[in-house]
Amino acid sequence: MKITVAGGGNSAQTMAADLALLGHDVTLFDLPEYASSIAAAMSSFTLEKYGSIDTRGPTGLARLANVTTDLGEAIDGAEAIFIAVPAYAHPTFFEAIGPHLRPGQIVAIMPGNWGAYRLRRHLLSRGLGEGVYVAETDLCMHICRAAEPFLGPGKVRVVLERGAVRLAAVPRADTAHVMERLSPVYPVLQAAGSVLETSINNSNIIAHGPLVLMNAGWLEHTGGDFMIYRDGVTPSVGRVTDAIAKERDAVAHLFGFPILSTRNTYEDTRNARWVLDPCEIGPPDLKHRYISEDIPFGLVPLSSIASTLGLQLPVTNAMIEISNVSNEVDYWADGLTIETLGLPRGGSAEILEAVADLGGAPK
Amino acid sequence: MKITVAGGGNSAQTMAADLALLGHDVTLFDLPEYASSIAAAMSSFTLEKYGSIDTRGPTGLARLANVTTDLGEAIDGAEAIFIAVPAYAHPTFFEAIGPHLRPGQIVAIMPGNWGAYRLRRHLLSRGLGEGVYVAETDLCMHICRAAEPFLGPGKVRVVLERGAVRLAAVPRADTAHVMERLSPVYPVLQAAGSVLETSINNSNIIAHGPLVLMNAGWLEHTGGDFMIYRDGVTPSVGRVTDAIAKERDAVAHLFGFPILSTRNTYEDTRNARWVLDPCEIGPPDLKHRYISEDIPFGLVPLSSIASTLGLQLPVTNAMIEISNVSNEVDYWADGLTIETLGLPRGGSAEILEAVADLGGAPK
Repeated sequence: MKITVAGGGNSAQTMAADLALLGHDVTLFDLPEYASSIAAAMSSFTLEKYGSIDTRGPTGLARLANVTTDLGEAIDGAEAIFIAVPAYAHPTFFEAIGPHLRPGQIVAIMPGNWGAYRLRRHLLSRGLGEGVYVAETDLCMHICRAAEPFLGPGKVRVVLERGAVRLAAVPRADTAHVMERLSPVYPVLQAAGSVLETSINNSNIIAHGPLVLMNAGWLEHTGGDFMIYRDGVTPSVGRVTDAIAKERDAVAHLFGFPILSTRNTYEDTRNARWVLDPCEIGPPDLKHRYISEDIPFGLVPLSSIASTLGLQLPVTNAMIEISNVSNEVDYWADGLTIETLGLPRGGSAEILEAVADLGGAPK
Repeated sequence: MKITVAGGGNSAQTMAADLALLGHDVTLFDLPEYASSIAAAMSSFTLEKYGSIDTRGPTGLARLANVTTDLGEAIDGAEAIFIAVPAYAHPTFFEAIGPHLRPGQIVAIMPGNWGAYRLRRHLLSRGLGEGVYVAETDLCMHICRAAEPFLGPGKVRVVLERGAVRLAAVPRADTAHVMERLSPVYPVLQAAGSVLETSINNSNIIAHGPLVLMNAGWLEHTGGDFMIYRDGVTPSVGRVTDAIAKERDAVAHLFGFPILSTRNTYEDTRNARWVLDPCEIGPPDLKHRYISEDIPFGLVPLSSIASTLGLQLPVTNAMIEISNVSNEVDYWADGLTIETLGLPRGGSAEILEAVADLGGAPK
């Protein structure tokens, strides 16, 4: 399949390498302002993929069809465009990509973090994207790292390949078509009920707040130079993580989702071999996407929607408040809320419909 | 002066040694169930006081008049009884001591943490304590440690002697009399307006929550074996501390207190030499009084009173929620609130009067 991967971070570069090794025709694209992140790949048209302890897929030198910051070149003729950038960069990418999209193309945001809903809304407001399929996943395809100091540029490393990743399109009736076309690419994909479900089902938004905020002193003192999942997930960090998971479960329950099991979040983690992998050193500070993405685009919309439906999330709110003060920002104002998402203040059925069926009838 | 110090922790043992070295007739008392904490002093009738980097007072071998777990013996004839135990032990001590108190005795709870108000309420409800002066301070007299591994039993170390400690009696008209009698003992004492002011003005309740909760992973991973004030007070920990200080200032403002300066809490701290002292290793876990005292008896009453007056304290509440989940307790239920303190749900003037003038006219 002819696929364009947009982004220059861990996930985008790893997907590009992985898909190329799987035999696809892959273009890696990043916006000109982020060109440095894909500079190594751009000079060689290759990425070297390493496996790690829990890797099953192909590894080795991946040859990319194209590596470019030219948007027209990147989008033209692509059957699928996978956007793998932090949610705070979504509006910039959507603005850039929107006018280039052509009927029949699939844009999948991986992970979604409300990206599919926001992209669909963006396209509708600009009168763009007719006949385009917009979808998102709940998670990244891999736990992976790119271009870290011990890897060097042009190299990516897969720590864990996920065994199941859920996908939904908006409007939700499009999900079947997207699944039909993307399942051959990623057999682990499973259809989710809606993009509300995939956005809420991202385990990063549960795990990263307590992980960072309850290790804030250690992270800032060491610049993140310790094994954060192995040593920093202590009993109280695990309990706060589970408490947020429970609050998220309660929100999902209001919508009737088949929520992922999030009980004992870290019992699974601590049994996983990847927590022993050197990828799991901590972020250098609290501006990292673990906070700057997962709080405003994860916990803030969760809490805002819950609150509209009469459900208070005290532990989730605690994470938001501490993040705000720590980073001297107001994630309540900067993040996604019922207001900024343009969602109705009605019941759960109205919110679900507004998110899942935005733009009306299926193609 | 004939003084009884009740308690077996850092502060009680240090006060006993310090007061004895200053020439007072000192009895150290602890309840029989805590006898082990004062066992070394009980066998020798001495405590050895060490100075540290910021100590001015006398040091050396302090000879105590008595060390006992016999309550009658401890209280009989004492002019002043200083209670220096964590607030969670107050009810047990008040229950035990109440029947032994005689007119003219001073009971000073150091620090108060609502202790003077609670003791006064306890005595009134039992028809006890007539003519007894009940007071409290906002802080401990010293930052100090007793019987830590590197000190050994029977030894206490003063890290910092405070330059100002505020005292108030309940009813507040008694403050002048208590100040007159205790100022010769502790010249640093200053009269505060009421026990509401001293209870709210305890800087521990501002500092300990962020210090512990934002270093939770590090503390639990190492058992507290790092220099927590020197290395664990990083920029975000300092910001959250300051945010709670601001919320506390707002509550004090409702009551018109001359609140202590709490801006830039840790700028002062980081300039202090005591943060380099080995006393400042962390607590071994989150059950420590830094949480189990300062959350339910510090931040919970602060938040509860604020809320009754229409003021929400989001960062304070965040600390409470994370503490609850971390320690698998409900500090909202176990701690002091408008309800458990038996305070009126009126305005600030009514609450202040209820706390400060409990039991009516001065003696």
